[in-house]
Amino acid sequence: MNIGILGLGTVGGGVVNVLTKNQAEIMRRTGAQIQITHAAIRDIKQSRICSTDGIQLTQDPFEIVNNDSIDIVLELIGGTTLAKELVEVAIKNGKHVITANKALIAIHGNELLTLAKDNNTHLLFEASVAGGIPILKSLEQGLSANQIEMVAGIINGTGNFILSEMCDKSRDFDNVLKEAQELGYAEADPTFDVEGIDAAHKLTILSAIAFGCELQFDKVSTEGISEISDEDMIFATELGYSIKHLGIAKKLDGKIQMRVHPTLIPKTKLLANVNGVMNAVLVKGNAVGPTLYYGAGAGDEATASAVIADLIDVIKNTVSNDTLGWHSLKAMPYQNQDDIESIFYLRLLAADKPGVLADITAIFVNNNISVEAVMQKQIDEQDNAHIAIITNQVKTSDINTAAAEIQKHSSIQEKIKIIHVETLD
Amino acid sequence: MNIGILGLGTVGGGVVNVLTKNQAEIMRRTGAQIQITHAAIRDIKQSRICSTDGIQLTQDPFEIVNNDSIDIVLELIGGTTLAKELVEVAIKNGKHVITANKALIAIHGNELLTLAKDNNTHLLFEASVAGGIPILKSLEQGLSANQIEMVAGIINGTGNFILSEMCDKSRDFDNVLKEAQELGYAEADPTFDVEGIDAAHKLTILSAIAFGCELQFDKVSTEGISEISDEDMIFATELGYSIKHLGIAKKLDGKIQMRVHPTLIPKTKLLANVNGVMNAVLVKGNAVGPTLYYGAGAGDEATASAVIADLIDVIKNTVSNDTLGWHSLKAMPYQNQDDIESIFYLRLLAADKPGVLADITAIFVNNNISVEAVMQKQIDEQDNAHIAIITNQVKTSDINTAAAEIQKHSSIQEKIKIIHVETLD
Repeated sequence: MNIGILGLGTVGGGVVNVLTKNQAEIMRRTGAQIQITHAAIRDIKQSRICSTDGIQLTQDPFEIVNNDSIDIVLELIGGTTLAKELVEVAIKNGKHVITANKALIAIHGNELLTLAKDNNTHLLFEASVAGGIPILKSLEQGLSANQIEMVAGIINGTGNFILSEMCDKSRDFDNVLKEAQELGYAEADPTFDVEGIDAAHKLTILSAIAFGCELQFDKVSTEGISEISDEDMIFATELGYSIKHLGIAKKLDGKIQMRVHPTLIPKTKLLANVNGVMNAVLVKGNAVGPTLYYGAGAGDEATASAVIADLIDVIKNTVSNDTLGWHSLKAMPYQNQDDIESIFYLRLLAADKPGVLADITAIFVNNNISVEAVMQKQIDEQDNAHIAIITNQVKTSDINTAAAEIQKHSSIQEKIKIIHVETLD
Repeated sequence: MNIGILGLGTVGGGVVNVLTKNQAEIMRRTGAQIQITHAAIRDIKQSRICSTDGIQLTQDPFEIVNNDSIDIVLELIGGTTLAKELVEVAIKNGKHVITANKALIAIHGNELLTLAKDNNTHLLFEASVAGGIPILKSLEQGLSANQIEMVAGIINGTGNFILSEMCDKSRDFDNVLKEAQELGYAEADPTFDVEGIDAAHKLTILSAIAFGCELQFDKVSTEGISEISDEDMIFATELGYSIKHLGIAKKLDGKIQMRVHPTLIPKTKLLANVNGVMNAVLVKGNAVGPTLYYGAGAGDEATASAVIADLIDVIKNTVSNDTLGWHSLKAMPYQNQDDIESIFYLRLLAADKPGVLADITAIFVNNNISVEAVMQKQIDEQDNAHIAIITNQVKTSDINTAAAEIQKHSSIQEKIKIIHVETLD
């Protein structure tokens, strides 16, 4: 089989390097010698992490996707414009396509998968979610006997690095973000990572594979981590929680919910102990119960590990998400955001006057919300107090109504912070 | 396809129940309606957890393996005598076999896999290791691009339950073992679980899949948890470690090592936070880095989840450990037990006389062992002190020599305890 690669940057270079260093082991597992035969690169002269010996180079990526001698195309250039066009041409030319491009699949996956099905080719994207962790294959194959009830993952390493540093070292958001940028974990414009868009792309893909629903990126409710403060970290810790930026997808009563947001989770849970840039995904199946998959979510060779696993599946024809046959993603109803039930953490800054807590409690009662825990801290000389409240399981609309009412109370000094709590049970 | 099941006990009953309740989802994933058509049971009248409607029952298991209309046999009776004979007959009759029987595969796997290869059938055993966790499929497929460097797992739920209770609640071994027996986690004769034999079976299988080496149960060095004391738990905690019963397999310089033993691991590691009856396996690949897989290691439906995943792989022909083709397990050299390098924890009970620690330290120095940490506790009115020592990375033979010398010192009051330490880095 001839394999053409689009892009020889971090991931593409990693693929070439791993194929070279693990040649013997891959031969043992596949019976085949796998080599990249063609590569499209932007700049011939640029220095790169891999050797290009034996690879036919071109600066025109369309030469790869239109080359009749190439059977499999690896799309590793990223983006959703040129990448989409190249993948479409490759599929129409009957080539199998493997990509690490989460945005491409999350946004254009439905049409690309249909196109692949119509052209009898495979379109695989294990590397698009959680880097080297074989989470898509586990969902499709290892857990194939299960109805998946929930997927909850730390699927953005940058965000997890920032929250881990804030929690462990009491650093503030801006300070850690700057370090993350210096370390190369975060982009100059960190919006994609920090505001949860990258995680939402990945959650869209996870949901589709877990539940068999269409890829619907626009149905993910997304909230970033930039508003998490020192006070929230301290309260969370004292209440027995960690704050993690989770992508959560659930299927309840036939309806899907997908949301990316900061989440308080009990410190005793494994997910709470996943720190730094590492990723982990918790999957609950109705037969197997809770399972968890942990590993590197990025990096040249970790991502290459997932790309090559797809490559081996295509070569050995052990592909499970069988776009050739019975398999197609179905439209499924989404749960209305207001109807989603959750436990919530609220943090208020209130003037410490008699009766404030009683007034707040009354508002909760009026909105049918029970309070599971309250913690109060004096913080300044103006007698203002931070108050943290953990509710019971309530509808999102109820907590929003209650918070809006409390916000109007004369003692409240700043915008009320609301964060989801998940017990992960 | 017709599917015959040998045994309708916990796992067999779970398989029938999961196939029934998840029929629609399995249909979505496979395009096939999967039903158990035949079952061999010991006692027709016995009450069981599943319905037998639509299943042709027999009390003679050979009727199943000799039935020409049956394509796939699920061996779920356990044991290595009758089970082996039945699996052999089934394979010789051209049937695919799926088993949850770790002892059978660990002890007779080489000949059974060869037999399956010779008869063009699949022999699959995902459920034999770590119950519902899809660890074998992850090793074979998700991590297929990697050279596996290490596998380290909590692969016996009973042992992990006992150690978790001892650690969290300061209970002693005998007391927790009794509770584990009452809860049904441990057998009346707990030897298999507590002395590490069950874990050694599973580690044998993990190593074979990870490294491609033959199944060689007799090469596993095995040590149980019955000698772990309160003092060890306390010292471990204060030194920043948890004690877990791990199965560890490594491939170093082309040589395999396999060992099951209590192990001190840093509390910050995910494995240290896997508690109760849950299982988890850490896998280090040379491309992906460390990855971890967590879930239920036993239970009717969790184990059924793995059995049915194999069933679906056979039906969809997405089997990765391809016994039909190129794949065969090779003999590989094993590392001499004495040459294995590890960090060690030693605990001594010594009369608290001047110069004792100096004498002990001198013995370490003479054997080229550096000491990384020492902790001493006065424990009784006879002025005896428990001393815990953490060494640097040393050869097993060196630590044994040093310990034997120290043991002879006049101040030492009881047998020196030696436990492995793994940083898991």
